[in-house]
Formats: sequence, C-alpha cells, structure tokens
Amino acid sequence: MNVLIVFAHPEPQSFNGALLHTAVAALEAAGHAVQVSNLYAHLFDPVSDRHNFTTTRDASFFKQQAEELYATEHNGFAANIEAELQKLAWCDVMIWQFPLWWFSVPAILKGWVDRVFAMGRAYGNGRLYEHGPFRGKRALLSLTTGGSAADYSSGGLQGELAGILRPIHRGMLQFTGFTVLPPHVVYGPARQSETERQTVLEAWTARLPGLAAEAPLEVGRY
Amino acid sequence: MNVLIVFAHPEPQSFNGALLHTAVAALEAAGHAVQVSNLYAHLFDPVSDRHNFTTTRDASFFKQQAEELYATEHNGFAANIEAELQKLAWCDVMIWQFPLWWFSVPAILKGWVDRVFAMGRAYGNGRLYEHGPFRGKRALLSLTTGGSAADYSSGGLQGELAGILRPIHRGMLQFTGFTVLPPHVVYGPARQSETERQTVLEAWTARLPGLAAEAPLEVGRY
Repeated sequence: MNVLIVFAHPEPQSFNGALLHTAVAALEAAGHAVQVSNLYAHLFDPVSDRHNFTTTRDASFFKQQAEELYATEHNGFAANIEAELQKLAWCDVMIWQFPLWWFSVPAILKGWVDRVFAMGRAYGNGRLYEHGPFRGKRALLSLTTGGSAADYSSGGLQGELAGILRPIHRGMLQFTGFTVLPPHVVYGPARQSETERQTVLEAWTARLPGLAAEAPLEVGRY
Repeated sequence: MNVLIVFAHPEPQSFNGALLHTAVAALEAAGHAVQVSNLYAHLFDPVSDRHNFTTTRDASFFKQQAEELYATEHNGFAANIEAELQKLAWCDVMIWQFPLWWFSVPAILKGWVDRVFAMGRAYGNGRLYEHGPFRGKRALLSLTTGGSAADYSSGGLQGELAGILRPIHRGMLQFTGFTVLPPHVVYGPARQSETERQTVLEAWTARLPGLAAEAPLEVGRY
C-alpha cells in the first residue's frame, strides 16, 4: 500500500507524535510506502485564499470554486497545494493523525482540506460521494481525546463520538469518494500510564498492516 | 445589546459580506453596539501554538491547555487573543457569519475557536455546558451554503443541516455556555436573483433587533 499520513499536532513529543512514528515504522516494516504531511512542521498555512493558486481567473472578485476549476484546467495550483494533490493521487490509504479539538480537527488540518480538496481535483461535475475522484482509496481518522470513553458514549458528558465525527467522515472523506475505515481513537492519553500507552501503540502497530482488508465503517447519511 | 460579529470570508464583495454589512447597519440603527472581528481582513492566523501566549509555563513540552491555564493566571495571552477574549466578555450576542465549507466553518474561524476559547477563560474547572463562562450570552450561526435547501434536508444529497451544524452548536457554543439561537441559513445565494438576495437581506434586517427575545434552538445532545 501507499499510505499518506497527515499529521496535525503542535508538539512533536506528544502522544500524537508517538502514534505518527509508530505508524510510519509499522507500515514501512510491513513493506508499505509512506509519505507524511507534517502540517505544523511544514508551517502549513490553513487560510484559503488567492495564494492557493498561481493563476487568476478573476482578479476583481474571488470566487474560490471558479478559481479552482480554472487552476485545474491551467495547472495553476500553488506548489505546496499541488504537492498535496499529488500525494492524494498516489496514496491507497490516507490516515489523519490529530487531537480532537472542539468536536473537530485542528484548524491547520481543516485548512488543509479547505485548500487541497479543490473543485475539479477532489470533486465537481457530479463527481462526489460514491462517484468522487478518490473512490477506491481508504481513509482513517486516528485521533486522541481529552475526555474518557465514557464521556464520548451515548448519554456521556460529550455524547457519542460517531455523531461528532460524522461531518468529517461524511462531508470531507465520503464526499470526495474515500471509503472510510473505523477510526482509531485513544481516549485521554494524558491520563494513561506509560504501560497503557505502550499497549495502545502495540495495538496500533498490529492493526496497520491489515488496513487494505478491513471492513469499512457504516457512517450513515444525515 | 452588545453584539460581536465574527466574519470569515475571503471576498469582501461576497454575499457573506453583504450579510455582514446588513447586520451592522440593522443593529446600529436599532441602537445596539456592534464590534466586528473580520478575520480575513485582520490576517488572523488560525494556527494554534505558542504564539497564543506571551508567557511560557514549560518551554520543553507544549501542552496547550496547561499553557492556557498558566496564561489565565499570569495575564499571558498574546494581544490579539486577549482582544478577542475582551470582545467575548463584552458581548451579549455573538454572530458568526461564514460560508459552510466541508460541513464546517472555514479554517480561519476554526482556528479563532482553537486559539481564543482557552481553558481558564472559555471553560475549565467544571465550568462547561450550562455552567460555561459564556452562560447568559446568545450565539447565532449566519451561514451560506453552495447547495439548495433540498440538498440539506433529510434524505437530500447532503442530508439534514441540523446534524451537520451540531458539532458547532453543541461542541463549541453550548460547551462554553452560550445559548444557541436558530441559525440564519441562506441556501445557494450564488444561484439567487438580485431580487431574491434583496429579500434575504431584508428578512435578516427584520430579524436582528429581536435576537434578545428569541426562543433558543433545541440542539439536542449526542
């Protein structure tokens, strides 16, 4: 498999960082190819604007989707955006490694989607959901939470995690054609012992080589 | 009322821009005070990191919540973050004006939440949901979509909008104590006639002065 890991955490020594390094090692040891988009390390700018493009369709009024279609036709994406699009084309499996912030991904990862999932390349002209350009590829959220598993269960303080993740699973991943795999969730690593964390990393190592054969997640439509 | 409008669109001439200017004019004409956080115009950086702070609790390992608590105790928020916190303290009503991108807010607005809703100031020590620091304040999402109302209904292409907005309503606004009002949604303004858009702006003008008396939205827990 060709695996793209998008990593969005400000602290390299964090448990998210450990999960990233574990994934790279486990996948490479199993003979898979890995590319990492380390958004904080690469100072990725999440603000979507004209700097997504080297081309300009209309200098007087910025309509992002129109600029995206124009850039698609004229090879007009900025180099860092084109590089991410090439990684998306290359990968069989995409993993997002991030901490759950405010019931969503960190802004640096949201902006990666805003800028890279461009009309013409990631969707458009009726190519969406099961007809999306990324059909045949698999995607998996690997995330940490502050709260416990009980907090993120039905009736818990925060409520069921599946519902919280649905806009990401449905509106970002399935929308562009990805087959979604069950998320890898680590609840409250900050309160885990070193032994518990080690067990988590071993389970992650054991899961990764088999991603191509896993049954997809039933996300459910809204 | 004191009203804070957070505006997140890259094109000032967009219909989002028209909704912003309409809101400012309508509220001020009714005698209310308005402050606008125009995130694109102010080049707001949505990447949450050490630059949220002037203080440093631990220079060797960045743990954001710990730095937030330390900054709360030592008046250590960066000037632009402190300015937003002051606006939040000042306002009775907060309006977010944005286009729905990927079933969520644009990254520049997500990062405003990531950076400004700091532990110690926006939540923490058991102060969350109905005990959140912003209790007594009201919040309202004013958004545009690309798709039609039918697309965002149950069984439609995208599915019910209420579910798509729930992580924002529940996980960002109610979590910090806000009372959530029904969203103001403009479906597909790009395909509306000038007359239709004018009607939308007039309805928005008519709604705004009565926000303090509106019945809250039933968001529902996950």
